Amino acid sequence: MCEAYINKPLGFKAGGIYAGLKTNPGNSGNTDLYDVALLYSEQPANVAGVYTSNLVKGHSLVRSIELIDRKKPLKAFVINSKVANSCVGKNGLDDAEKIAECAASNLGISADEVLTASTGTIGVRLPVDKINAALPKLASSISADAGDGHKAERAIMTTDTVPKEVTAAVTLSSGKEVIISGMAKGSGMISPNLATMIGVFTTDASIDIPLLNKLLRSAVSHSFNRVCVDGDTSVCDMVTIWANGASGAVIEEGTSDCELFLEALTDLATDLSRLIAKDGEGATKLLEITVDGAKSDKDAMLIVSAVAKSPLVKTGFFGEDANFGRIITAAGYSGASFDPDRIDIDVAGLPVCRDGIMLEFDEDEAAKLLHEDEIKIEITLHEGESFDRMFTCDFSYDYVKINGSYRT
Amino acid sequence: MCEAYINKPLGFKAGGIYAGLKTNPGNSGNTDLYDVALLYSEQPANVAGVYTSNLVKGHSLVRSIELIDRKKPLKAFVINSKVANSCVGKNGLDDAEKIAECAASNLGISADEVLTASTGTIGVRLPVDKINAALPKLASSISADAGDGHKAERAIMTTDTVPKEVTAAVTLSSGKEVIISGMAKGSGMISPNLATMIGVFTTDASIDIPLLNKLLRSAVSHSFNRVCVDGDTSVCDMVTIWANGASGAVIEEGTSDCELFLEALTDLATDLSRLIAKDGEGATKLLEITVDGAKSDKDAMLIVSAVAKSPLVKTGFFGEDANFGRIITAAGYSGASFDPDRIDIDVAGLPVCRDGIMLEFDEDEAAKLLHEDEIKIEITLHEGESFDRMFTCDFSYDYVKINGSYRT
Repeated sequence: MCEAYINKPLGFKAGGIYAGLKTNPGNSGNTDLYDVALLYSEQPANVAGVYTSNLVKGHSLVRSIELIDRKKPLKAFVINSKVANSCVGKNGLDDAEKIAECAASNLGISADEVLTASTGTIGVRLPVDKINAALPKLASSISADAGDGHKAERAIMTTDTVPKEVTAAVTLSSGKEVIISGMAKGSGMISPNLATMIGVFTTDASIDIPLLNKLLRSAVSHSFNRVCVDGDTSVCDMVTIWANGASGAVIEEGTSDCELFLEALTDLATDLSRLIAKDGEGATKLLEITVDGAKSDKDAMLIVSAVAKSPLVKTGFFGEDANFGRIITAAGYSGASFDPDRIDIDVAGLPVCRDGIMLEFDEDEAAKLLHEDEIKIEITLHEGESFDRMFTCDFSYDYVKINGSYRT
Repeated sequence: MCEAYINKPLGFKAGGIYAGLKTNPGNSGNTDLYDVALLYSEQPANVAGVYTSNLVKGHSLVRSIELIDRKKPLKAFVINSKVANSCVGKNGLDDAEKIAECAASNLGISADEVLTASTGTIGVRLPVDKINAALPKLASSISADAGDGHKAERAIMTTDTVPKEVTAAVTLSSGKEVIISGMAKGSGMISPNLATMIGVFTTDASIDIPLLNKLLRSAVSHSFNRVCVDGDTSVCDMVTIWANGASGAVIEEGTSDCELFLEALTDLATDLSRLIAKDGEGATKLLEITVDGAKSDKDAMLIVSAVAKSPLVKTGFFGEDANFGRIITAAGYSGASFDPDRIDIDVAGLPVCRDGIMLEFDEDEAAKLLHEDEIKIEITLHEGESFDRMFTCDFSYDYVKINGSYRT
């Protein structure tokens, strides 16, 4: 599957438009003048979603959760960037509803078939007039073309520097092929549960809602829930999957087809997660942290999380400084239970700690390995069988720069 | 009490020396050529300590914990910077012991009367020879003078840019005066439990060990345990208090004198904590975060911690960007339970959120307030009576710079 775009599965259309929400759009090099995305399924699609664990939830998201919880098929999804539509009070829900109504009337469907999502600055009212003025043109321009899919992805990006689109084809036991596509935006305020503000999957397989829910949760648990940029969990995070059945192929629970589908979906989610970490705000390196031999799954998760979130670890890798004591330090304060005298650590394949003792190593070799743009940090505890993995990035001057002036 | 120094209470001597541990000492502007500190009490002192919660503990610290746990009076304390003496295996304990033995023989006391502490890079052996070569001169140079006290403080500093010394006099009900002094070093790897790598208090009051323990724990709980620079907890953190009774005044539990003493000690610990946060690596601003009206003490602590650790909040204040949605976001993912529709937030006295709705404010006024170098962030939940407070700093280019090249 060469080119990846969200509207590649049969029966999906997509597009993006510039509605005047983003300022100085040509300036950041990451916008290409799009800020409102529209996804449309010709046939009603089953939709499942997972959402931010933040107690504070954006209004567009709250509206979408209510719609998905009704378990009725949906047809369209409007996503805007620049304004998060969060913490603005009751108006927030009304604003999202007005946009859904406008999209619905332009698509000839009902507003309760239209999901909404918003990402951007918190505490600012959505410019409903601007969005609704752009929707007629957007609704009439959506297509199944790759170019329009890319516009949709461009429209949901905020500080992302590269688009994040993935596609896979799954050949079922019947010989039939179904397609799964995904797109996502990062790239700051990224933390497990969820790890991205917006992720969308589409497929032309037919999958009932209970199974779709299970598949999405399983795929997300070790991908989107295992990526961290700065440990901040956004109030707008959501990942949805849309299954419209346009391929005619049905996926049922407990079948080998279901396993194949889940495997492909998990791979795509993992690919998107890696892309998000690698494109973390200001990132110069992708860091993949693994813990093996932990006493429990929780211990393994605590350690990968602590290491992935440690500003000392992350700035050290940015500076390509072989200060690996910070990794064992983060493991030590993670809350996980382990014997510090048995821990082994390898960085980029180089043994740096054995039995809790930091090893001497060739500084030139370390400098060369640390210069790579993808680095594995492998921690082994020799306490049990549990494993976990997290993707993160280094912490650079540019992270500070981007987030010291995001709003302006 | 004008000048503050650790050896101000009666019966204490101190000093600092350059033993050749720090490299390029003139370069960073923060060392003044000292890297080994010695504190000495003419009379045996009762000592209490609190230590890092990190599972991994430095060898010098482990040795000191064992000594303090014996509950016998101690006489001296050797502290070195540059090398943490952590994660080097069994040699680490031997190295600390050799230094204690050398200090003891030069002071004419026993090695088990000598505490040890080390702070700096993890995984590197202590240069025992260098330290022990310097100890005779250091032991013969210690005095009760302010200048030698300042040298001790200089010697324990790593990336600190300013010394942190405090002193208070407490007049007891008898009219007698006791003195309390404190010194501390920050300034990265700072997180609650503990918040500083090394903190030392001295007093010429006579206080038994059980009471001294209680007083130290109480003073630390809302000061050193409520300061955060980057959320990383060092493996060497320790705060000790030395009470030698040289003033002749006895502090006993349950008395008004005890209350006065605790109040003064808590104030000093709070002052040191503020100094540590303000001098956090690369910091340009001190941020004081308070939560009031929380349902429980735990909820209040969770929220101040989440806000204080949020890289998005911290970089935003560095950039003086009025992006206050990040504060409510951090509160929302803190794990605390509260109604997001009732939360109020004030920044530098400016109301920015009421009932969960972000308010519009005068951008010019906000810009002026955000330009201050000490900023209060006040969060009110209207859920209960619990209060908490944490000190932190902003996150700047220099934090990244300092920690991208700490070891080198």
